Amino acid sequence: MIYDLIIIGGGPAGITAGIYAGRQKMKTLLLTKEFGGQVAKKATEICNYPGFEKISGSELIEKFVLHLEKQESVEIKFGEAEKIEKQNDIFIVTDTLNEKSEAKSVIIATGADPRPLEAKGEKEFIGKGVSYCVTCDGPVFKNKTVAVVGGGNAGLEAAIFMLNYAEKIFVLEFGPELKADELNKKEVESSQKIEIITNAQVKEIKGQVMVDSLVYEDKVSKEFLTLKIQGVFIEIGSQPATSLAKGLVDFTKRDEIVVEPETFQTKTPGLFAAGDNNSGHYKQVITAAGEGCKAALAAYEYVQKIKR
Amino acid sequence: MIYDLIIIGGGPAGITAGIYAGRQKMKTLLLTKEFGGQVAKKATEICNYPGFEKISGSELIEKFVLHLEKQESVEIKFGEAEKIEKQNDIFIVTDTLNEKSEAKSVIIATGADPRPLEAKGEKEFIGKGVSYCVTCDGPVFKNKTVAVVGGGNAGLEAAIFMLNYAEKIFVLEFGPELKADELNKKEVESSQKIEIITNAQVKEIKGQVMVDSLVYEDKVSKEFLTLKIQGVFIEIGSQPATSLAKGLVDFTKRDEIVVEPETFQTKTPGLFAAGDNNSGHYKQVITAAGEGCKAALAAYEYVQKIKR
Repeated sequence: MIYDLIIIGGGPAGITAGIYAGRQKMKTLLLTKEFGGQVAKKATEICNYPGFEKISGSELIEKFVLHLEKQESVEIKFGEAEKIEKQNDIFIVTDTLNEKSEAKSVIIATGADPRPLEAKGEKEFIGKGVSYCVTCDGPVFKNKTVAVVGGGNAGLEAAIFMLNYAEKIFVLEFGPELKADELNKKEVESSQKIEIITNAQVKEIKGQVMVDSLVYEDKVSKEFLTLKIQGVFIEIGSQPATSLAKGLVDFTKRDEIVVEPETFQTKTPGLFAAGDNNSGHYKQVITAAGEGCKAALAAYEYVQKIKR
Repeated sequence: MIYDLIIIGGGPAGITAGIYAGRQKMKTLLLTKEFGGQVAKKATEICNYPGFEKISGSELIEKFVLHLEKQESVEIKFGEAEKIEKQNDIFIVTDTLNEKSEAKSVIIATGADPRPLEAKGEKEFIGKGVSYCVTCDGPVFKNKTVAVVGGGNAGLEAAIFMLNYAEKIFVLEFGPELKADELNKKEVESSQKIEIITNAQVKEIKGQVMVDSLVYEDKVSKEFLTLKIQGVFIEIGSQPATSLAKGLVDFTKRDEIVVEPETFQTKTPGLFAAGDNNSGHYKQVITAAGEGCKAALAAYEYVQKIKR
């Protein structure tokens, strides 16, 4: 059985692509490890998806999934895609269990994973004080002192979320100033519990069994300074999950898949990339959804064309 | 007072731009005749805005507007923009009451208006049987026979909507086949009340006081044929509402504003166009919203840059 379309990924881009493929009655397989991607794990409530003034990431994704499940021509399979190949006009997607699925077109909507800091001790203490997911692990740090590494929106939102739990929160930013929405900055700067440290390069995360301190260099004074903390949340952005597309697409310096910005087609005809994994500049839930829609409509047009 | 941003238009693109401008605390004026644009007047329920399985256009817009109204830095003004000029780095927007507003950046999100058929009798019978808005005027034709001109999604959705009211519905398509989503086609083709006529060029709409018939040419047989009908809904697409941007932007052949597809900036720095009025290929609620978001973030970056 050859599908019209395989969508890889179950975040806002993949789900929206699925809804649109369903509207077009494309025989579609949506292959994903889980639903939600980064959104489901988002620390603070989502306030910028039009139509919902305030909604948790997991609730929003639940609504997306219910919407997707109404599409009769879309089959959902839980699994992890590992490789995409193209033979003649057919794409072959192989998952980690070595199961193969075939389709006339593919949308890669695999999103992005948290970017590691690559500091000494980081890997060693994952799950022992080091975390990349404040919603998952935040509550463990009730009445503790934590550091959030990263002064962008993700970092500040993590810090705001931790106000519910931690006694004291350090936000460490590598650059000379925070790089976030004005509303997030205002909330962080007005909190007594949050202390912002700029020009800070994290050098080491230390501890015995569990994390007990973090060493950073003040890039202005060149001093090495130590913070006594019990938890470290790393929020320095994400790296696109794009290795499965190797050989079929071009990548940017940041490993994003290069796409044509109108149809989201890659350099391989019939292969599209929508959402946080592509070369687009803006990465929001609403933009990922818009891109998923455009990619699905472009895939539909592509499949109609090769049928003729 | 000079705003950071003026948004012209209150459909999904304009409202989403307003939500994002609010998140960035940009001093913003949103100028619009009314809220909702084409969406609020949409015939059938909206089934493809992710998060809502099925919602009427007016309900969805109500949710969008409530969301917009939470943004403290966004001022809403009801009025119709007529002209945009740029003097040095400042845009001046003049409305039809000759009131002027100034801003550092402008997003044009004026959407599109229904495209007229330009057939004999069309103008004469507007409001007397000829309509461009099935939601507005459909219920008047209870137990009557109507024609829908246009075999795209808009036409088929109008015909589906009229199933609730009309006794008989003709769908006239200029080309040799319907050009719509498979789901819409299936629904129309399976209805006993709907008759599809392809290769039909409408020549005249006739009547005494009110419409009583429609004459079309069968483009294959070259015959002129008459349908006895009481109502005509014209659904042959839309024309972008872009004349206010003349001199500052380039236009496509279809009068759409040419934009850079990543930031939605026009050829004039600081002037953006999002939604149905621009050169983008796909015109959906979700894509308009995604574009409104990207344009607002790009406007924010532009304003930050000129401040320095």
